[in-house]
Amino acid sequence: MTDAIPNVLAERYATPAMRAIWSGEGKVKLERELWIAVMKAQRDLGIPVPAGTIEDYERVKDQVDLDSIMRRERITRHDVKARIEEFCDLAGHEHIHKGMTSRDLTENVEQLQTFRALELVRTKAVAALIKLSSRASQFRDIPLTARTHNVAAQVTTFGKRLAMFGEEFLGGLNALESVIQSYPARGLKGAVGTRLDQISLFEGDAAKAGELDEKVVAYLGLPLAFDAVGQVYPRSLDFRVVAALTDLASGPGSFAKTLRLMAGHELASEGFAKGQVGSSAMPHKMNSRSCERINGFHAILKGHLAMASALAGDQWNEGDVSCSVVRRVMLPDAFLAIDGLLETFLTVLNQMEVFEAVVLSELERYLPFLLTTTVLMQAVKNGAGREAAHEAIKEHAVATIGDLRKGTISLNNLFERLAADPRLGLTSEQFTLISEQGRANTGAAAAQVDTFAKKVQTLAQKHPTAATYQPGDIL
Amino acid sequence: MTDAIPNVLAERYATPAMRAIWSGEGKVKLERELWIAVMKAQRDLGIPVPAGTIEDYERVKDQVDLDSIMRRERITRHDVKARIEEFCDLAGHEHIHKGMTSRDLTENVEQLQTFRALELVRTKAVAALIKLSSRASQFRDIPLTARTHNVAAQVTTFGKRLAMFGEEFLGGLNALESVIQSYPARGLKGAVGTRLDQISLFEGDAAKAGELDEKVVAYLGLPLAFDAVGQVYPRSLDFRVVAALTDLASGPGSFAKTLRLMAGHELASEGFAKGQVGSSAMPHKMNSRSCERINGFHAILKGHLAMASALAGDQWNEGDVSCSVVRRVMLPDAFLAIDGLLETFLTVLNQMEVFEAVVLSELERYLPFLLTTTVLMQAVKNGAGREAAHEAIKEHAVATIGDLRKGTISLNNLFERLAADPRLGLTSEQFTLISEQGRANTGAAAAQVDTFAKKVQTLAQKHPTAATYQPGDIL
Amino acid sequence: MTDAIPNVLAERYATPAMRAIWSGEGKVKLERELWIAVMKAQRDLGIPVPAGTIEDYERVKDQVDLDSIMRRERITRHDVKARIEEFCDLAGHEHIHKGMTSRDLTENVEQLQTFRALELVRTKAVAALIKLSSRASQFRDIPLTARTHNVAAQVTTFGKRLAMFGEEFLGGLNALESVIQSYPARGLKGAVGTRLDQISLFEGDAAKAGELDEKVVAYLGLPLAFDAVGQVYPRSLDFRVVAALTDLASGPGSFAKTLRLMAGHELASEGFAKGQVGSSAMPHKMNSRSCERINGFHAILKGHLAMASALAGDQWNEGDVSCSVVRRVMLPDAFLAIDGLLETFLTVLNQMEVFEAVVLSELERYLPFLLTTTVLMQAVKNGAGREAAHEAIKEHAVATIGDLRKGTISLNNLFERLAADPRLGLTSEQFTLISEQGRANTGAAAAQVDTFAKKVQTLAQKHPTAATYQPGDIL
Amino acid sequence: MTDAIPNVLAERYATPAMRAIWSGEGKVKLERELWIAVMKAQRDLGIPVPAGTIEDYERVKDQVDLDSIMRRERITRHDVKARIEEFCDLAGHEHIHKGMTSRDLTENVEQLQTFRALELVRTKAVAALIKLSSRASQFRDIPLTARTHNVAAQVTTFGKRLAMFGEEFLGGLNALESVIQSYPARGLKGAVGTRLDQISLFEGDAAKAGELDEKVVAYLGLPLAFDAVGQVYPRSLDFRVVAALTDLASGPGSFAKTLRLMAGHELASEGFAKGQVGSSAMPHKMNSRSCERINGFHAILKGHLAMASALAGDQWNEGDVSCSVVRRVMLPDAFLAIDGLLETFLTVLNQMEVFEAVVLSELERYLPFLLTTTVLMQAVKNGAGREAAHEAIKEHAVATIGDLRKGTISLNNLFERLAADPRLGLTSEQFTLISEQGRANTGAAAAQVDTFAKKVQTLAQKHPTAATYQPGDIL
Repeated sequence: MTDAIPNVLAERYATPAMRAIWSGEGKVKLERELWIAVMKAQRDLGIPVPAGTIEDYERVKDQVDLDSIMRRERITRHDVKARIEEFCDLAGHEHIHKGMTSRDLTENVEQLQTFRALELVRTKAVAALIKLSSRASQFRDIPLTARTHNVAAQVTTFGKRLAMFGEEFLGGLNALESVIQSYPARGLKGAVGTRLDQISLFEGDAAKAGELDEKVVAYLGLPLAFDAVGQVYPRSLDFRVVAALTDLASGPGSFAKTLRLMAGHELASEGFAKGQVGSSAMPHKMNSRSCERINGFHAILKGHLAMASALAGDQWNEGDVSCSVVRRVMLPDAFLAIDGLLETFLTVLNQMEVFEAVVLSELERYLPFLLTTTVLMQAVKNGAGREAAHEAIKEHAVATIGDLRKGTISLNNLFERLAADPRLGLTSEQFTLISEQGRANTGAAAAQVDTFAKKVQTLAQKHPTAATYQPGDIL
Repeated sequence: MTDAIPNVLAERYATPAMRAIWSGEGKVKLERELWIAVMKAQRDLGIPVPAGTIEDYERVKDQVDLDSIMRRERITRHDVKARIEEFCDLAGHEHIHKGMTSRDLTENVEQLQTFRALELVRTKAVAALIKLSSRASQFRDIPLTARTHNVAAQVTTFGKRLAMFGEEFLGGLNALESVIQSYPARGLKGAVGTRLDQISLFEGDAAKAGELDEKVVAYLGLPLAFDAVGQVYPRSLDFRVVAALTDLASGPGSFAKTLRLMAGHELASEGFAKGQVGSSAMPHKMNSRSCERINGFHAILKGHLAMASALAGDQWNEGDVSCSVVRRVMLPDAFLAIDGLLETFLTVLNQMEVFEAVVLSELERYLPFLLTTTVLMQAVKNGAGREAAHEAIKEHAVATIGDLRKGTISLNNLFERLAADPRLGLTSEQFTLISEQGRANTGAAAAQVDTFAKKVQTLAQKHPTAATYQPGDIL
Repeated sequence: MTDAIPNVLAERYATPAMRAIWSGEGKVKLERELWIAVMKAQRDLGIPVPAGTIEDYERVKDQVDLDSIMRRERITRHDVKARIEEFCDLAGHEHIHKGMTSRDLTENVEQLQTFRALELVRTKAVAALIKLSSRASQFRDIPLTARTHNVAAQVTTFGKRLAMFGEEFLGGLNALESVIQSYPARGLKGAVGTRLDQISLFEGDAAKAGELDEKVVAYLGLPLAFDAVGQVYPRSLDFRVVAALTDLASGPGSFAKTLRLMAGHELASEGFAKGQVGSSAMPHKMNSRSCERINGFHAILKGHLAMASALAGDQWNEGDVSCSVVRRVMLPDAFLAIDGLLETFLTVLNQMEVFEAVVLSELERYLPFLLTTTVLMQAVKNGAGREAAHEAIKEHAVATIGDLRKGTISLNNLFERLAADPRLGLTSEQFTLISEQGRANTGAAAAQVDTFAKKVQTLAQKHPTAATYQPGDIL
Repeated sequence: MTDAIPNVLAERYATPAMRAIWSGEGKVKLERELWIAVMKAQRDLGIPVPAGTIEDYERVKDQVDLDSIMRRERITRHDVKARIEEFCDLAGHEHIHKGMTSRDLTENVEQLQTFRALELVRTKAVAALIKLSSRASQFRDIPLTARTHNVAAQVTTFGKRLAMFGEEFLGGLNALESVIQSYPARGLKGAVGTRLDQISLFEGDAAKAGELDEKVVAYLGLPLAFDAVGQVYPRSLDFRVVAALTDLASGPGSFAKTLRLMAGHELASEGFAKGQVGSSAMPHKMNSRSCERINGFHAILKGHLAMASALAGDQWNEGDVSCSVVRRVMLPDAFLAIDGLLETFLTVLNQMEVFEAVVLSELERYLPFLLTTTVLMQAVKNGAGREAAHEAIKEHAVATIGDLRKGTISLNNLFERLAADPRLGLTSEQFTLISEQGRANTGAAAAQVDTFAKKVQTLAQKHPTAATYQPGDIL
């Protein structure tokens, strides 16, 4: 088709591992695994399956021809039927899907996709936390002008700022973990959730039907299962998943937004890939394209959350399929988006640069203003009158910022002015000392970096594969 | 790629016409048309272009090889550059994109896609209105139990109910028309919107740069242009577009939801495609799959609106690209979704069936309750005491609904009970008359259908192609 | 003010307990408690506080005059300062808020409000689950036509349908519990999160500053605390809270929507409050106002979630206050909305009625269609040819639904037709038997109700106050 | 009530004019006006109304006692009935609300509130545009470093940047105007929209019922009316209104966000109210509280839009009231939020300051990089080899930015380096000239400001009251 349109998130941003979960081919393979597992469980529970049958299905299960399936669907107008026929024709038997309704298949397969995707996201998130923590430790002690309202407020350290975003990210990861740990499968429950179709298969033996359900859920590798469901599992479960992904993106989102701000002040840059160069004639133009993209992915996820929230709490009776087209879009796309986001985040964490001289120069510009309280205390200690000292500081501070804004001066010389004012009675040396101490006055910042690093270390030990994960090349 | 993931909205639901606007190939063609138009305008304004050059570009403009372009992008890491090189290599010249920045290209091409897609949506919406109006006229006089709070309230007609949803849809179409009429192009404005790059091309001649801009906008076929923009056009324009699509989907949404309710009462069905049959053994199971899908598409659009709203009012300085990945997803997908929605809506309008006997039987069940006021008035007119009559009606009405709910009776026999009660002094014949008049008591319903039909007729005359538009087959 | 506008959620729907948390007066009291607790902790850690001072503050802490505070704020243009002055003037001291910044106060107070509101929501949710479970057990065995796509599909029981929504609700409650268990306080961290202000208070003693923080968090009764934060705690925490509330509303949402559908078929009604009567002349008009309202509250929460999601991942540096006005609206209103929702849900659960005869009559209408597979199996067992039997069933089923829709018949007589057809060779008695067994063929429905009841019982034991909670009167 | 909670948007941010539209008292007054207008129209159309009756109602219509009405509602459990009784008791008659259903009252009154609020918003938006245009003209020629990706890109002017946001705002205003011009009233259409109740009042005279409807719509002052509606008007109309408000907020949103960025560079400040002072010791700390608040209001509106979008396309039959509680929150609050936003925006426009020296110094820092293309062209013109010149520029540019980032230099000395490099053959004088011309190289910026000003002037002439509108004091 010349008018074919690829899924842009899959094509441009997501990784092969995530695509493999959500591709048409990937889904067909999962379905076939499920059918085979059900056959095996049924055989164990006494349903007759001729010898060799399961082996025949297994032999062909990776022969996936999506075009052939689509041709069948256009005739039958029923997607599950089309896929059953395809698999049976390949195997030369008609033994799959016994005692199963369409939703016994599709619900569980989609949950399997969701669950495996959640696990993949977790691994990448841990990888990103490890990298973020190592960067925070690297910049643990670099003093940085902390800003509130985007205006200089106090001194922090670069590492602490990273740890702060890291702690937000960690909160998101814990929330994701809680969703993973409590993710329930729908299981084999029949057309309206009473397990009637399974009980009929076992000629009224409800216990066997229950056993079949348990075996299949165990196969899915899911931690638990719903008991009382309808045709479908409650769509608020999808909402919970997408909300957790949106939550998880918040730490990287805040980080990216702040790095974009810092790049505007040339304090830092998201860096470049090896081999990639910025504009040579305009070398200052290191655009924060990747950070912008992280914020963009987050906006996409928030849109998927709006889709998920439209489905939550909207179940009619035992279920309808007004959710069908929505979930076909939202579920894969939300995972492809978070995958792209985490890859981009990892890349930025790898390549990020800090321009320490600029960081220092920013601090010099604001430090005297940030230290006026200290000056006042020192002056009073030295014997100055509190009111007179306060008045003096105020006069000079207002004059200094005025001169900086008028361009009369280009460096903050408030301390020179104060040193020259007899009302304070402080020497230049004393001001130098106040400056030096002030610059180092980062409170618990370094300790906070260390605490964060320890938390991440514990997590890293639980997820050994995450520690070595490296992102792929990004576009 | 075995893990390729198609855009599900494009692949399963949208039409070739809409896909052609948003496909990679379609976009490349639009870009090349824009470059050629710019070259022509520049030549007219005195920029030297060697003879034959434009013809060489035109000759190859339909040779689109997306793989080749992608290979170039992976090297240059710059998508526009990759496409320039591809086109120039094909033509054997390097004359395109003069005095243009990347955004002079991409902004205008995306706007062209948006605008043409808006026009296509309008055509289909008019087609749907025409069909809806004809259905409303067909069922103009069929009395129907109107429901509020999902409970019987008064009598309306089936046609009036359709006209009601039609009027909502018409409101959405008018809002869309207003967006189309006032849709402004960004035009050629240079890197930060001051048109510097164009003025430089004309060696300082701002007037010529302005003329070039106007010529290009005229080429795009857009009704007007921004003047003071930045690197990008304001993203609230995208928000306005997606909001208009969401608005437009509301009439079909309310219609679909109500048809799903009616199908639950077997009053109507969305019908089947020719050649398609429902389950033969369970012929009552005519699922409202298409109506459910319409509601699903609407949920998707609301998600895209959330994405668009994240971008609106978030411009940093002259522009950043935190919107980039969002717009790559949201713009095509919103149009593909509304396209699928309108196709589905048209199909339902074509195939919808009404079961008049069930409609009538529903009315018979509730009519006596709905006419108690009339009975009271008639009884008082006949000489009954108001209070006594009221008391009698109340007693019998409560008893009747009680018996219906207890299953003691299966038909509403309130009027028989009232006819037998001497307190009212009304004969069976009088009750028959009240019933007949009551059933016909549809107020202005028929006239409202006619008024709606007239509005649609006017619209149809303005859009002659819409009248004959037929939807494609849906999955 | 004649143009005063109350918070409509607080005034019309929420309970005194929830209002007390979010009212201006309630907030001021919490603030004062915090200040007092900080003073005590500081005194314990060696900060001098004159004897009697704390007692003086405690004596006046419930004297809240919001007008007086507002008058102060209009002068100082600083809300925290206004409230400090008010409290100090009342007490006759100036000892509160030492070593604290505004955010050390407001962040923790808002978190305290949030946390206590979460606990209140949990109690009510457990109460609703207990009630829902008791209703499910009550209707455990009433056979009900299960519907998919809003069309009859198989048999379930009324109790199972309730358990199904109950299990969705339980999932939401578990998710909420996980948020409560892991809710971290910001604590006393100073202006930019480095705890500098506290460390200064203790003249450089970081350990004491840390101890102070811990003591205060313990006072708040919160389970844990952030370590590396900025001026504010990450706003994704608010997102997580509002997402949990939205999630929690899903079970009630699905229940309410389905009850509205059932009321349309007169299968059930949300009932009336004692003393309230429906329209006496139109006694069928039992509008599902409360269920509609539950769905309405959910829509409101989804809007608050959109607000929360706009703040998540949007932190600039150590924090800005673009979140301020949003949180003033979103946080209280989301809790007031869920409070109104749960009260309404509890009320509906108390008053809900089921019309068993109508439920049965609906089942009779569809049962023969739902049992055609059983008929076929039985016929074949009896010796009929499979093809002939299938053909016969199909013919009669299509004719029967056609006659029902044409109004030729009003009761489903498919089984009479089949009994009369020699191709099947089944007697009327056999059909009666099939019907009876079919009606009882509710699979694991009853067992599912019991399992649900057991889960709720366990929960109820953990929350003894919930069991006796009764909703207030609703408007 | 000590636990009373005011509407925070009304209490803290909105103006008396907007509160008067949405307050309980304001709504009661509008209702009474509607009832009186209906009585007058009915009298004109022949319905008997005793002499003096209307006058009696008019006399008491401003006696609004909300507590008394609430007491009545708690008894009747029906809000409209409570308000009818109150008004009738005050007047001593029972002549209002004839031939009207509850929704004939409430729908039209809410539309009247909406429409008048839309008009008020328009006036304030025009006022803000006038102010913005005057500020743009004031700063028309101040050269400013335009930024893309938050990084210096080319030169623009401060005025042009303002005009750019102004043009976005103007687009939003035009979209709002289109909603106002096409806003349709529901009118008097009876219980299910067939106008049956009105036709009954006129004893079957449909023409008179139609005339009554028209007269009432004319009274409302609305431009047009729906014809085919149900119990309610389509809720997509509310969606359209809230979408227009969200759209309108985008221009101010982008402006506010950019001003927050600029404040971070000390290029500009949102200023202070007269009499208000910033911190005297930390005079650099001019927090962009108001701009942050503008962005906050926008986030709130986006949440209201999510609420509105949940209602659009969700009508069941002739209407249900699942929208009721949502609209009670969303409609007033969306208007109160946009009111607060526009007041804040006007205040910032009044108080905003630009620090020209800092603006200039920022430009000096980047200008040489922005002019490298010009240098190259000039060098080639002077006889330098293109390749050699390009290489030289590249070397020096990379070295310069490196030195700036390393802190080796604090001013951009690229041009000094280039002047000293014989490969280019350009003198210091030539570089000075290039700099001067480059600084002035703002393309069409000034002309764009003028064009914008002209558009606003036209608009101002159409809205004379807007020109003199001044915002109230903000908190």
